[in-house]
Amino acid sequence: METGRVEAFSDGVFAIAVTLLILAVGIDQAPHGDLGRYLLDLWPAYVAYAVSFLTIGIMWVNHHLLFDNFARVDRPMLLLNILLLMLIAFAPFPTRVVAEFARSEVDRRNAALLYGITMTTTAILFFSLWMYGSRRLLRADADPRVVSGITRSYLPGAPLYATATLLAFVNSIASLIMFAAIAIFYALSAALFGRTDATVSRTAASGDPS
Amino acid sequence: METGRVEAFSDGVFAIAVTLLILAVGIDQAPHGDLGRYLLDLWPAYVAYAVSFLTIGIMWVNHHLLFDNFARVDRPMLLLNILLLMLIAFAPFPTRVVAEFARSEVDRRNAALLYGITMTTTAILFFSLWMYGSRRLLRADADPRVVSGITRSYLPGAPLYATATLLAFVNSIASLIMFAAIAIFYALSAALFGRTDATVSRTAASGDPS
Amino acid sequence: METGRVEAFSDGVFAIAVTLLILAVGIDQAPHGDLGRYLLDLWPAYVAYAVSFLTIGIMWVNHHLLFDNFARVDRPMLLLNILLLMLIAFAPFPTRVVAEFARSEVDRRNAALLYGITMTTTAILFFSLWMYGSRRLLRADADPRVVSGITRSYLPGAPLYATATLLAFVNSIASLIMFAAIAIFYALSAALFGRTDATVSRTAASGDPS
Amino acid sequence: METGRVEAFSDGVFAIAVTLLILAVGIDQAPHGDLGRYLLDLWPAYVAYAVSFLTIGIMWVNHHLLFDNFARVDRPMLLLNILLLMLIAFAPFPTRVVAEFARSEVDRRNAALLYGITMTTTAILFFSLWMYGSRRLLRADADPRVVSGITRSYLPGAPLYATATLLAFVNSIASLIMFAAIAIFYALSAALFGRTDATVSRTAASGDPS
Repeated sequence: METGRVEAFSDGVFAIAVTLLILAVGIDQAPHGDLGRYLLDLWPAYVAYAVSFLTIGIMWVNHHLLFDNFARVDRPMLLLNILLLMLIAFAPFPTRVVAEFARSEVDRRNAALLYGITMTTTAILFFSLWMYGSRRLLRADADPRVVSGITRSYLPGAPLYATATLLAFVNSIASLIMFAAIAIFYALSAALFGRTDATVSRTAASGDPS
Repeated sequence: METGRVEAFSDGVFAIAVTLLILAVGIDQAPHGDLGRYLLDLWPAYVAYAVSFLTIGIMWVNHHLLFDNFARVDRPMLLLNILLLMLIAFAPFPTRVVAEFARSEVDRRNAALLYGITMTTTAILFFSLWMYGSRRLLRADADPRVVSGITRSYLPGAPLYATATLLAFVNSIASLIMFAAIAIFYALSAALFGRTDATVSRTAASGDPS
Repeated sequence: METGRVEAFSDGVFAIAVTLLILAVGIDQAPHGDLGRYLLDLWPAYVAYAVSFLTIGIMWVNHHLLFDNFARVDRPMLLLNILLLMLIAFAPFPTRVVAEFARSEVDRRNAALLYGITMTTTAILFFSLWMYGSRRLLRADADPRVVSGITRSYLPGAPLYATATLLAFVNSIASLIMFAAIAIFYALSAALFGRTDATVSRTAASGDPS
Repeated sequence: METGRVEAFSDGVFAIAVTLLILAVGIDQAPHGDLGRYLLDLWPAYVAYAVSFLTIGIMWVNHHLLFDNFARVDRPMLLLNILLLMLIAFAPFPTRVVAEFARSEVDRRNAALLYGITMTTTAILFFSLWMYGSRRLLRADADPRVVSGITRSYLPGAPLYATATLLAFVNSIASLIMFAAIAIFYALSAALFGRTDATVSRTAASGDPS
């Protein structure tokens, strides 16, 4: 199967998962009491929505970056990719749980653990997909420096998320803050410190060589 | 990353966000009491649905218009675009809140403020995305008159929405009417007063030069 | 704007609206009482789901059929199309209301009226879009027989739906049956009596002239 | 209609249906009681989510495999495909019912029957679509060995699902385990035992012969 088709389907799942994050804000729950206070008290939901949106958005960018280096997609890769999408599409659930329980003394820890286990597993799958693909499916003309650069930059992902998850046992507020910090760090580093030649011209994209 | 791919992902988020507006009508709530009266009393939900659908629909058209003038997409633009999509995908929530509280004397103001703050922020991000892109990513063959025309036409968006938002402190009904008026104005002006040469032939689109 | 891009966005809204019809089955409501009886008593929901899925599915096929005859998309057409999509994306709501109230003596009429008004308006918009496009945006090489054939075949849509809607005032069960009959009739006639040369080869689609 | 367009629309429905499976986890229900216990007790929902995700994911891969062998799509095929998508998009509902009642002594059987009837019907439609297409719409250059290989590999699908469904009358736990086993078997066999030459190069996909 061609990489383009797998990417198109993956794009669909990414786009839908990210949009379904609105469920984390409790769009399906009737607001009650004083609306102004209700909307202000929802602030953990807004933060959880933004952090998860940013996280999945960056994963989408990286997903394309990986597949750009693959010459083709084989069957184990198809399965790995379906498993990865299974976790991406799951993200709205832990996001909602965190949104609802971030202010609860009793349940905050369990919410942070659910979120952390989901994110750590996602990061592990993401890295496995890259390790498998970079050893078996690489394009002949893939730049070795780009390949090892990607490996280096994805290496700390899973340990970072695992650390934030374990942090919940010590301090669940610190754990949640660390999840937000990871998302912001990746977003800013992707936006500001990326290689300047990573951009591709529109003519190349449209297949029009003129 | 190529503009085409970013546009495809953005299209997905626009299409899903717009379709999820049906949640604003309360599709997930069991109707109760006399059905006829219940359905008639939902009229603010129908209006909110239509206004937000029109607003996001026009933003989708404009989003393509912007990217058509870009030669490429760099990393800061990717982040700006994810932030814009984050707000587009958020729209179903304020739309639902307005739908539910448009007839409430007490809570209408807060509903209008939530809707207005969302729309104003969206308009600011939209304008920022254009200002950044038009200075850094413009195609070599972009028509300067088109570029300055877009700048001129997007300039009033954020101030208009900010005005409608602030109007809620004086009169929340007038505020909601102004949101609807802005959407209808943009829809009609886009449909009727657009440049006649803005249309592109199907052959150009299909990449068939014959 | 090119027809391809408008079709891609429209495809997205069609695909999402059709998939959200699952909300009409009450997926977001906890089943209660004896599960076997609960699931059997849901039969109006299954029928409503199938009828609306079929209806929107056929509209999606026809939507492509229309745009295949257009050389380009102008701005009034963009607005007409957004209005049409607004109604397509609205369909899950009346479908759910019919699913819930089809067995209610008291509320069946109002459910049928809501469904009928939505479908009649959709059919009118669909026909308007075609009439506008076929007069202003036709491809130079569009076959006049195909064009007049489409006009003839779409002409009865709105009157048929309007009749089924008005029938609800006489007999609301007959009205609902007529909605189902229209969907099945269109599905079968599209599947069985279509022109045999309406099919397009895969090579033509992939842009490969070999 | 070209196969590419039908596949794109189908991809959309597959992607959305798979992402809406998150509704099976009860994302729209407020967790209650002790959160840790609530999340652990949800394990049947996680399993149901994973099994259905895997099942639909593999169907998506197979859907492309089928259409790759078709030269074109005719009108009966369009209808067959809409009926298939109707069942794919229905999957979140039985998945949720199984998720909620897998631990109920009384209702597990009916949940398994609903799931099994949906999956068996889906498998029958899938096979019918292939049988129709492989007799009427085959590409001139389709490899007869590939065609008969697909027929052989899809033949046991419906009987397998029917057996698992009927098994519910004897032992509903065994029935649910068999549904999971079928999904895992298909996933592993697709990933590990596929033909090595089934992969297609990226250059072929992008239409760039260089």
